[in-house]
Amino acid sequence: MVKMRRKLTEDEKFMRSAIAEARKAEKIGEVPIGCVIVKDGKIIARGYNKRKKEGNTLSHAEIKAIDKACKKTGDWRLEGCSMYVTLEPCPMCAGALIQSRIDKVFIGCMNPKAGCAGSVLDMFSVDGFNHHPECVRGILQEECSDMLKEFFRELRKRLREEKASDGKEPQ
Amino acid sequence: MVKMRRKLTEDEKFMRSAIAEARKAEKIGEVPIGCVIVKDGKIIARGYNKRKKEGNTLSHAEIKAIDKACKKTGDWRLEGCSMYVTLEPCPMCAGALIQSRIDKVFIGCMNPKAGCAGSVLDMFSVDGFNHHPECVRGILQEECSDMLKEFFRELRKRLREEKASDGKEPQ
Repeated sequence: MVKMRRKLTEDEKFMRSAIAEARKAEKIGEVPIGCVIVKDGKIIARGYNKRKKEGNTLSHAEIKAIDKACKKTGDWRLEGCSMYVTLEPCPMCAGALIQSRIDKVFIGCMNPKAGCAGSVLDMFSVDGFNHHPECVRGILQEECSDMLKEFFRELRKRLREEKASDGKEPQ
Repeated sequence: MVKMRRKLTEDEKFMRSAIAEARKAEKIGEVPIGCVIVKDGKIIARGYNKRKKEGNTLSHAEIKAIDKACKKTGDWRLEGCSMYVTLEPCPMCAGALIQSRIDKVFIGCMNPKAGCAGSVLDMFSVDGFNHHPECVRGILQEECSDMLKEFFRELRKRLREEKASDGKEPQ
């Protein structure tokens, strides 16, 4: 049977661009996480995880993209913008999104261990903050989730192989 | 009566350096917030608020200093480091401190409106996160608090004066 491919929605198209960013991270051995920032229907900034490569706490996909978007617009406020990100943001990135006053955040898959848009915390809904980005979860969820699972499966396999070959080396 | 000056503790000395950073922000018309990162008893990075000047969400004192410390050490982990910051960190900066795995955070004064080390949230104590920086509050609290109060008093005065002089201009 031929599997029919349904047409992607606009949100899914932007998430595909975020996935393409994540693939760039994967290529350099980083955890595949990527994002794009969209304004007036156009991507104005992209980012992918480079934490290990750059040896920098701040080199998460979202921080990279926020930095670029601010430099492009010359404004610390990203009002009128949306972010599409493959994985639920960590506390730093969720905080940066609140600080940026971004309108909307579209999330691929959730991160039960550290996510701050509903998993460990729901930072976008804290009454005390002066900004609450609208949050849409589960855009191309399976694709985003499978990409991460595959990365960690390969990583574990490589580590096992390295361990096994270490054992064979002459003492 | 002569007021005796007691000797500053080491923590207070580092907070004085953070206050000196905050004064740099004040000089360029930014909200006076400053910080330093200390490792092995030495300051390895400094930062002050430049959000308006740089037009960038990320230009908070703490983010600036974390960036410099990572670049200096070449490591995204700031283990063995402490931060001294004049004002309780916002959600973004508290999140970045958690992500950096920093050991300790020393805070000058609290920020009831947006602080995330006990005010709006206590992000350093969230069970679900994999790191919990130790937090010490109230180092040179009065000095840090007065500096901010004075800044906002002057700002309000200037805005009132500008409004008044606007009213006098010919229509």
